Amino acid sequence: MNEVYTGKTKDVYALDNGNYMLQFKDDMTGEDGVFDPGANTVGLSIEGAGKAGLRLTTHFFKQCRDQGIPTHFIETDIDRQTMTVVPATVFGEGLEVICRFRATGSFIRRYGKYAVEGQPLDAFVEVTLKDDERGDPPISRDALDTLSILTKAEYSILKDRTQKIATLVKNELAEQAIDLYDIKLEFGRDQDGEIVLIDEISGGNMRAFKDGVYVAPLELAKMVTKT
Amino acid sequence: MNEVYTGKTKDVYALDNGNYMLQFKDDMTGEDGVFDPGANTVGLSIEGAGKAGLRLTTHFFKQCRDQGIPTHFIETDIDRQTMTVVPATVFGEGLEVICRFRATGSFIRRYGKYAVEGQPLDAFVEVTLKDDERGDPPISRDALDTLSILTKAEYSILKDRTQKIATLVKNELAEQAIDLYDIKLEFGRDQDGEIVLIDEISGGNMRAFKDGVYVAPLELAKMVTKT
Repeated sequence: MNEVYTGKTKDVYALDNGNYMLQFKDDMTGEDGVFDPGANTVGLSIEGAGKAGLRLTTHFFKQCRDQGIPTHFIETDIDRQTMTVVPATVFGEGLEVICRFRATGSFIRRYGKYAVEGQPLDAFVEVTLKDDERGDPPISRDALDTLSILTKAEYSILKDRTQKIATLVKNELAEQAIDLYDIKLEFGRDQDGEIVLIDEISGGNMRAFKDGVYVAPLELAKMVTKT
Repeated sequence: MNEVYTGKTKDVYALDNGNYMLQFKDDMTGEDGVFDPGANTVGLSIEGAGKAGLRLTTHFFKQCRDQGIPTHFIETDIDRQTMTVVPATVFGEGLEVICRFRATGSFIRRYGKYAVEGQPLDAFVEVTLKDDERGDPPISRDALDTLSILTKAEYSILKDRTQKIATLVKNELAEQAIDLYDIKLEFGRDQDGEIVLIDEISGGNMRAFKDGVYVAPLELAKMVTKT
């Protein structure tokens, strides 16, 4: 078992059978001890964060599987804080796909001339490049195609799956009277070229509010997985 | 005749018959005396710049008219440095539409991980919001639709006209062995709701090179209009 990648919130190991194992860590993205799902640095470490993230991820990945939405998920070992997954390659050097139900964060920073904080958005999808140096720039369907990162047909599939997964999460949170503002997903191609959901779906990937108050990642995991 | 707008490179007057008059100035966008078509400030003033810009604009607007591409152009008075135009309203608070034949400028600043300076692009179109405060952010077709700035059908027309106009300019420059890298256009809706090219097409709106050397706006106008 070889470590092939050391991430901000997860480490990745190659297994002998060709699959991979993700080791969930207690580190969370943010700055100066304050959690920020959009940050590119580790900002804080909270005991139990890895386990909570893995539990929520497993919960949602199983729901995707039940609904026929392809993911890289195989199985989870909660005690060891690991998830085994099939191999998948990212698009280019990695994309983030954001689905927004309410305007906040970078959407307001960019489009604040035309939108107000919290304004409803209809499962609006946008893609950003994973590129810390250039501030994770947003990129259009046409630019993804022009730069051979994603074809237009693949973009349509990506957008459709993003909206389905995000809506699934939104509906699940709504059962606990939690309001999902936005969520960030990652996708890759599996060995058959199929577009699959990868990485994780945890509190660290989304902004959710209950009675107007932000729900922190660990609390969110506890409320949804009832642990 | 009332002045209704004081711009960086043009002033706008309302005429009694309902049309408008654009007064071309010798000011150019840039910083510290260096011309930059993407800048939001007046960086320098060159005698003859207004006349050269108007001459080139008139040249290309007439070509558009000949090819059935709608513009706001009525007529030009070179000596007074004015152009009269039909009324048109901009989309939202104004958009810039960029067509790229080679990668440079903000395209490289954003997508430099995937593109190299000068790389050919196939009449690639992107839209940015005119919003100095937020650094003129790029905006996707879906976001323009979501924010009710432009419908998806209007976006298709805008993109198609942008590619036609940019290709017309590119071909015209190619006759003088000038290589068009990119060009920035503005559009509006006329009183019938038709999408029309507005503003100007001058050296200040494009980046062009001859034998690998950048061609400055005034020089470009002289070469194309043979004045």
